[in-house]
Amino acid sequence: MSLINDILNGKVADYLKNIAEKERVLLDFLCQGIREGTIVVPRNLKRTSAAFVAIGKGLFTKVNANVGTSRDRVDIDCEIEKAKVSEKYGADAVMDLSTWGDLSLLRRRIMEAVKIPLGTVPVYEIAYENIKRGQNIEEASWQEFFDVVEKQAREGVDFMTIHAGVCRETMSIFHAFPRKMGIVSRGGAMTAKWMARNKAENPFFQYYDKLLDILLEHDVCISLGDGMRPGCIADATDKVQLRELAILGELAERAHQRGVQVMIEGPGHIPLHEIELNMKIQQVLCRNKPFYVLGPVVTDIAPGYDHITSAIGGAVAASSGADFLCYVTPSEHLKLPDVEDVRTGVIASKIAAHAADIVKRGDVASERDREMSFYRRKRDWNSQIACAIDPEKARSMHADGISETEDVCTMCSEFCPIKMIDEMENKKS
Amino acid sequence: MSLINDILNGKVADYLKNIAEKERVLLDFLCQGIREGTIVVPRNLKRTSAAFVAIGKGLFTKVNANVGTSRDRVDIDCEIEKAKVSEKYGADAVMDLSTWGDLSLLRRRIMEAVKIPLGTVPVYEIAYENIKRGQNIEEASWQEFFDVVEKQAREGVDFMTIHAGVCRETMSIFHAFPRKMGIVSRGGAMTAKWMARNKAENPFFQYYDKLLDILLEHDVCISLGDGMRPGCIADATDKVQLRELAILGELAERAHQRGVQVMIEGPGHIPLHEIELNMKIQQVLCRNKPFYVLGPVVTDIAPGYDHITSAIGGAVAASSGADFLCYVTPSEHLKLPDVEDVRTGVIASKIAAHAADIVKRGDVASERDREMSFYRRKRDWNSQIACAIDPEKARSMHADGISETEDVCTMCSEFCPIKMIDEMENKKS
Repeated sequence: MSLINDILNGKVADYLKNIAEKERVLLDFLCQGIREGTIVVPRNLKRTSAAFVAIGKGLFTKVNANVGTSRDRVDIDCEIEKAKVSEKYGADAVMDLSTWGDLSLLRRRIMEAVKIPLGTVPVYEIAYENIKRGQNIEEASWQEFFDVVEKQAREGVDFMTIHAGVCRETMSIFHAFPRKMGIVSRGGAMTAKWMARNKAENPFFQYYDKLLDILLEHDVCISLGDGMRPGCIADATDKVQLRELAILGELAERAHQRGVQVMIEGPGHIPLHEIELNMKIQQVLCRNKPFYVLGPVVTDIAPGYDHITSAIGGAVAASSGADFLCYVTPSEHLKLPDVEDVRTGVIASKIAAHAADIVKRGDVASERDREMSFYRRKRDWNSQIACAIDPEKARSMHADGISETEDVCTMCSEFCPIKMIDEMENKKS
Repeated sequence: MSLINDILNGKVADYLKNIAEKERVLLDFLCQGIREGTIVVPRNLKRTSAAFVAIGKGLFTKVNANVGTSRDRVDIDCEIEKAKVSEKYGADAVMDLSTWGDLSLLRRRIMEAVKIPLGTVPVYEIAYENIKRGQNIEEASWQEFFDVVEKQAREGVDFMTIHAGVCRETMSIFHAFPRKMGIVSRGGAMTAKWMARNKAENPFFQYYDKLLDILLEHDVCISLGDGMRPGCIADATDKVQLRELAILGELAERAHQRGVQVMIEGPGHIPLHEIELNMKIQQVLCRNKPFYVLGPVVTDIAPGYDHITSAIGGAVAASSGADFLCYVTPSEHLKLPDVEDVRTGVIASKIAAHAADIVKRGDVASERDREMSFYRRKRDWNSQIACAIDPEKARSMHADGISETEDVCTMCSEFCPIKMIDEMENKKS
């Protein structure tokens, strides 16, 4: 039985109580959110040992980290290390976006290595399997689309990105209104290519109910991919992006009606002043289904720093309603991330999520900020470090900044304002 | 003659034409802004060789970088290097916040090393001079406050932070409504301490006209410091911050009426949803005078990453009207920044400023984004790198990500979506 159907039948699993406690919401609120589709708990029926994470309205903002091989970089141990580092620094989910190597083995090893939910993009495996056979994605049969989903579902994948919105209608708009960057979603491009060569509808769109049957059986959460997300500021909020989003809203409703948990994926490259608008449009078109955004990246000109462009966009997106931020690393637009890029990307996204949670959840979210300022006022450096989002980094930077003379840092030394005010108020001698 | 008075008398210096061209505004618009006080061009009459930079309404958002010694770190060459790196990565101004060593020498060397305007905080020099005499700031005479300002003005400083809003009225509110973090402005704390010990009004507040006389003579721009900026999320937008801002608005008006160019300094630690509000309040209370903000930092818990918390806050602040962003480096709250911290801080602030300029100035600001996406679509890596905000970083990261087989990067390799779509559209074979 799927989680939605369990709840509809009055069955409330124990782990939901733990989630409610961790999220600091009432259990009834959590169950209502799942029932109404504003909250998802992506977990495959097979994954009994995994951590359970809830994503959606009224909860803390969650962060996803991507790992995975490419043809140029197949190093399974390195990808496992990335998954572990992601979990260590607070990622709430990990997606394996591998496109080369032993994909089943990699998924199994990730599930052994980390407890957070695992997501995938099945169309990548279809593409790779065809390459292995000396073919390419266009030569896949429509049946393969479903075989791979079923295989991954059996292996225990918790959520899957399915680009069902890349359909004939979307493609006709895509061709009618050319974009500067075209399609920048890998899964979207693969699907579009398959459709063009086969002069056929997207199998996931055409046989969507068949897809839902498989997902329902294993209770896999569907994450409706935005194949048409804008790949540059100039393409943001354009006709094809909005039309696809409307279609995703309809598909999401069908999934939810069947008892399949569903999220919507969103942009992308979006200028700062269009982010809130994008969040509100999604809320209306997709009836408040959880919104899972990549970035948004607020300028195109900062390769090497797209964890920062995305932290800006992600904080604004989440504070206007996005529920789940896909991290972006410094290596975005340049190369496959290494372990250090992954660490930096996760932390930047966690900062964005937390800054937004202060907006969304007020005092419940800012407890740690109050704790930090309490220790900062006391100049209690060890407690400040313990309270930091990355204690290792804070410790090593502070070690380089210990004043020779006093309990202050080298920024102000003698003239630490906090110390001066304490002296003024005679709190300290 | 001061710039404002020149313009009132119909004298339009040649350099204003260059500024108007660079800012892509009409010369009349620029002159009107200076006349009305919504734009400043901080430049000491002595500084004929400096670059002229305009800050304010309708212009591109500017970035300031801080350099300067502290008792624990007195290395003039290192500070000069920081100033040069700041200018190289696009800072529009530099402030010397030194509190130890030969301050006059350091200022002279910075003015020789970089062309961007130089700002200072004179009260730091007063504090240090008293320490050198075996005293402390409380023992300074009120006359010293003006002597130091005059000395620095003669040396050629272009703008000065003056904490004139830390006055008896502000302090009574400060004591009546205790804050978690008290005062976190160094200059604010020095002033408060001096006032408490001497049971006297702040000399810069009490003899404000005398201060304006000196500044007017050298045409130094006054930057009214926010001694009461909140030092943690919990103190944001509180009574004392707002009362000080109202006083700064009144003082700004008096400066402007005298023909002294004036900016207002602003917060600080502010949660994301209060930033726009803070910008709007400043615009009303200070009649659209240029707003120069530090951060804002949107969460307290990220020491080591405050360039990111500030990029988030700075982008939102500038897109809602802030004109001038003071950078924050990764070492904020931990130590005096080193050269690498300075570089990272400047770039993070430049990203925030640019993301906001896309909002404020539309197509004029996003030209480079369109250029970047043009080259990205063509997979022209060298041109993308040339177009990047930090070409060195982009080049080195891409060098680590060159695919063995194709003109794509190692992120997607074989499955580059841009290449797939090109193939689909038969643009390439």
